[in-house]
Amino acid sequence: MGSADLAAIKIFTFPVRVYYEDTDSGGVVYYANYLKFMERGRTEWLRAHGFEQTELIRDYGVIFVVRKVLVEYLRPAQFNDLLRVTVKPVDIGRAKIEFEQTVERDETLVTGQIQIACVNAESFRPVSIPAAIKEKLWN
Amino acid sequence: MGSADLAAIKIFTFPVRVYYEDTDSGGVVYYANYLKFMERGRTEWLRAHGFEQTELIRDYGVIFVVRKVLVEYLRPAQFNDLLRVTVKPVDIGRAKIEFEQTVERDETLVTGQIQIACVNAESFRPVSIPAAIKEKLWN
Amino acid sequence: MGSADLAAIKIFTFPVRVYYEDTDSGGVVYYANYLKFMERGRTEWLRAHGFEQTELIRDYGVIFVVRKVLVEYLRPAQFNDLLRVTVKPVDIGRAKIEFEQTVERDETLVTGQIQIACVNAESFRPVSIPAAIKEKLWN
Amino acid sequence: MGSADLAAIKIFTFPVRVYYEDTDSGGVVYYANYLKFMERGRTEWLRAHGFEQTELIRDYGVIFVVRKVLVEYLRPAQFNDLLRVTVKPVDIGRAKIEFEQTVERDETLVTGQIQIACVNAESFRPVSIPAAIKEKLWN
Repeated sequence: MGSADLAAIKIFTFPVRVYYEDTDSGGVVYYANYLKFMERGRTEWLRAHGFEQTELIRDYGVIFVVRKVLVEYLRPAQFNDLLRVTVKPVDIGRAKIEFEQTVERDETLVTGQIQIACVNAESFRPVSIPAAIKEKLWN
Repeated sequence: MGSADLAAIKIFTFPVRVYYEDTDSGGVVYYANYLKFMERGRTEWLRAHGFEQTELIRDYGVIFVVRKVLVEYLRPAQFNDLLRVTVKPVDIGRAKIEFEQTVERDETLVTGQIQIACVNAESFRPVSIPAAIKEKLWN
Repeated sequence: MGSADLAAIKIFTFPVRVYYEDTDSGGVVYYANYLKFMERGRTEWLRAHGFEQTELIRDYGVIFVVRKVLVEYLRPAQFNDLLRVTVKPVDIGRAKIEFEQTVERDETLVTGQIQIACVNAESFRPVSIPAAIKEKLWN
Repeated sequence: MGSADLAAIKIFTFPVRVYYEDTDSGGVVYYANYLKFMERGRTEWLRAHGFEQTELIRDYGVIFVVRKVLVEYLRPAQFNDLLRVTVKPVDIGRAKIEFEQTVERDETLVTGQIQIACVNAESFRPVSIPAAIKEKLWN
């Protein structure tokens, strides 16, 4: 894929409200929970491209699993905040997808680089992303 | 089972430490998380009787699921508290077990009455608790 | 409050999507997580009545805490389900509110009776629900 | 600090049992939950050095917050596994500590590089790690 294609990638955004369940006694969102928010974003990004993960398992026998995350915590989110999760695929390989994601309020609070792999739903062994899926994900 | 047997039931206890993950921005343990603590207690109670839940699935094709909970929150637990979860089976029926549980610190913080059912691991339909299990649970 | 008033109470509903974070290896939503869904519903019910919980703390020094829950699990929700949480206040007392709640898909999956108390945000001691709040909650 | 000191750093280990609450419907531990396990390890490492985080807040007005995580998921942990979390401080700076952590079963399942910062408990602004604490952490 050329850089021209990359430039055309749209950034998908999804709203997340912070509830008590997301916070800790430090008064802010618990650090692991941003990973939940980011995954909600990726799930909704897939759905916006016409894919339900339940169908991926049923029709193709594959699931996406997270291989690697690099997350930086810049500023804390707080109870009741209305956040915006962004999802930007930056590389879609044979069996992997790499995302840049953010969690934002008025400014960027958390950034993430997330690498997910397509694996067989039973064996968890890496498999190629089905062509029918891969094609649609670039749109 | 007669009341003489019931009187002989030992109360099983299991320690739980409160970490940041368990608290919320109110400064106390989030109310749903006491249900996690209680389930850890029931899991360890089963283990103390010689049963691993992974074996129940593999050997008998059954899992235990929660049917009903009645939980009263008397006093809040806080970050870093070392709690004690108690597990007391009060009725073991054909396909159900009823527990009385508490979460305690210096005093009782939370009480629960928890009803679990034995179900087929695939269909989630109620099935009898395997005799070999039922027998051991009274000890 | 008379029963005529009770009859007029509207049922508030709020959508909840099931993500991986909500499920467990039994293949269904983890039992404690329905309490999270129900609380999201109550939070949005309060918001729909014009109250942000952050303002309740700041303006009145009070928070709402859960005192008691009775939850029945009828059928399991699964990954990717789009659920509907309902919130119906059935009694608003001096310092307590009692709710009937459900989590529904095509049918009712989980029912709850939830009692919350108004407490001082510092001491966690029960206090009267501020009149300005109480008035609006019946609408 | 010289490399001789670094070489002398002991690796702290802490056991973690996988309960249903930790898993997802993929049948494995949910990816965000390894961050909970790692934090339990760091909390117990601090405790093993004589520090309770509640005392750090009370006596010094500081808390430790996570600034950055790099986590690689090599193999999945499953329900009922007994895991070992390791904690190895690799750099203790003026206001930051960097850890290398693993989550292991028979082999390494997950690796993490975690950077935490010492901040004022009210303002969340970076502050120096109190000397009395810093001194003890090398032992």
